[in-house]
Amino acid sequence: MISYDNLGRVQSVNTSSPVSPPNGRVFSGIQPTGVPHLGNYLGALENWVALQDQYPSVLYSIVDLHSITQPQEPARLRNNILDMAASLLACGIDPERAILFQQSKVSAHAELSWILGCLTSMPRLRHLPQWKMKSKQKNEGSVGLFTYPVLQAADILLYKSTHIPVGEDQVQHLELAQDLARIFNNRYGDVFPEPRALLSSTRKVKSLRDPSAKMSKSDPHAGATISITDSPDDIAFKIRRAVTDFTSEVTFDPETRPGVSNLVTIHSATARISLEEAVSQARGLDTGAYKQLVAEAVIQRLTPIREEIQRLKSDAAHLESVLSRGNSRAQELAASVLSEVQRCVGFS
Amino acid sequence: MISYDNLGRVQSVNTSSPVSPPNGRVFSGIQPTGVPHLGNYLGALENWVALQDQYPSVLYSIVDLHSITQPQEPARLRNNILDMAASLLACGIDPERAILFQQSKVSAHAELSWILGCLTSMPRLRHLPQWKMKSKQKNEGSVGLFTYPVLQAADILLYKSTHIPVGEDQVQHLELAQDLARIFNNRYGDVFPEPRALLSSTRKVKSLRDPSAKMSKSDPHAGATISITDSPDDIAFKIRRAVTDFTSEVTFDPETRPGVSNLVTIHSATARISLEEAVSQARGLDTGAYKQLVAEAVIQRLTPIREEIQRLKSDAAHLESVLSRGNSRAQELAASVLSEVQRCVGFS
Repeated sequence: MISYDNLGRVQSVNTSSPVSPPNGRVFSGIQPTGVPHLGNYLGALENWVALQDQYPSVLYSIVDLHSITQPQEPARLRNNILDMAASLLACGIDPERAILFQQSKVSAHAELSWILGCLTSMPRLRHLPQWKMKSKQKNEGSVGLFTYPVLQAADILLYKSTHIPVGEDQVQHLELAQDLARIFNNRYGDVFPEPRALLSSTRKVKSLRDPSAKMSKSDPHAGATISITDSPDDIAFKIRRAVTDFTSEVTFDPETRPGVSNLVTIHSATARISLEEAVSQARGLDTGAYKQLVAEAVIQRLTPIREEIQRLKSDAAHLESVLSRGNSRAQELAASVLSEVQRCVGFS
Repeated sequence: MISYDNLGRVQSVNTSSPVSPPNGRVFSGIQPTGVPHLGNYLGALENWVALQDQYPSVLYSIVDLHSITQPQEPARLRNNILDMAASLLACGIDPERAILFQQSKVSAHAELSWILGCLTSMPRLRHLPQWKMKSKQKNEGSVGLFTYPVLQAADILLYKSTHIPVGEDQVQHLELAQDLARIFNNRYGDVFPEPRALLSSTRKVKSLRDPSAKMSKSDPHAGATISITDSPDDIAFKIRRAVTDFTSEVTFDPETRPGVSNLVTIHSATARISLEEAVSQARGLDTGAYKQLVAEAVIQRLTPIREEIQRLKSDAAHLESVLSRGNSRAQELAASVLSEVQRCVGFS
């Protein structure tokens, strides 16, 4: 998940543009990194599940076109797409209420991206965080990495989406989508509603080995990251070894006590209780005993998800058919907007 | 026609790659600039017509996705697409032997372009002539203009094309397509034959008002450019006023006598005679009388084309159906290659 992660809870909900679908449409994407970790689940996917109840139209895309802006091993990518689909379903994405689909199977993403690229100036992209960060890591990135935010704008606008769950690090990318909606509308007439951010909550799960860093799939420290398919033993072991500090009492103070506060965050989120309630349940427990409590909450929450992922993965044909139905539904919505765009531009 | 013009006569014909379609496949594209001028016709389109007899599979695309890398007025673009289609048919493109189609109606062009962009480094594009020339004219171009050569590579590779008619100014762009074929094949296995250049002839038609410049649709000088739909009177008038020099005898010497030599080129090409034969027919004529001879040859060649364009344009439904059939045939070929590519990359 390069930049489609870090989603969060809803902070602003209002629609205004006359071209919006009634009551709004949510779009979000996630890179096919395989099975998500606990940070993805609590920080973003839980919110995705909740949005299904709040909006009449919700689209979630496994953005494989974005994933190839970094080198991918093909067989592993294919497997990661199916793992991600199974994980999203197991976490509560309901294919009856949300359209869950694979980006590369809806041709109009790339087609609209080309058209929007012709409305985007080169300097506009050079200053976006995606390029500045990633291209420095590897000296020079690919054209795909550079134009990544244009494809992201196309993902959003292709469905006339109105509400986009984003993390703070994605605000500039959403601004590009907003600008491109305006530029297109100014030139060709009112086609796109201006998509609005659903800003992420501050619930950020940290590495269990270094609580100053975000929990991340690519974390090199063993035990830093809990996968949502980890066994109960693995979860208990990783939490038992989580870095805390030398004070044995449990308090919530992310600034001075990041390690134990991260456990409180995880506890509160997985047990679906407030932070205060989590701290109060820890009263009288030392850190070791509290870790057991946290592990139990995590295990309880993740066990049905892990089992459901196993079940879904054991029936690949069913999984592929769920995804394929989502692809068709997305394709249908996209084709209608693309043909409107093509008429505006003069292709039809 | 930004960069798809200046095609010419065949100079090299051989195929070698094991993944080539049998005996080769020709691909070329032309921007929808409306009705072509005499320079397009003699320099490129006549050659396109000839290639239909030389290769078992020939595709010609009206590249409207490329055209929007420069601002276009939508209604005019739509009309220009139909004018170009009518002109190509009138010039001799036979929709039974060649697949004539509109690029934006075949989604896989943009899709493959995205995938190839992920294999293209940023510095590789910065030095290509397209960007260096056009972006300087307008300070900073769009992302579409910058990535234009990647889309061009996708156009070619999408049909596993083997032979590409190109002008000298397009050699670097074809080299990118060749590089991307190699890079893709190295990473994912032998999918694309390496496309080869069919280098253009040296037959270059010059402006009638300034024979040091190419004949061009955007030439601001009145009378510099003959459209293939110009009336006989207009043709005669423009040739009568063509810039020559103060020697009345007709000779062919493009270096020292560019104006009269341009007329000899036009005469020889439109009358389908050698340059020597054209000069010999001019013997005893002064420049004024020779211009009449040239005008007659041009009028004789263009009259049936002009009439056929009028006929085709008067039946828009038929024209659209010819194009639509070409789109379907191209779509079918493209879908099969794209799905092979998607399997290689790991999307399927």
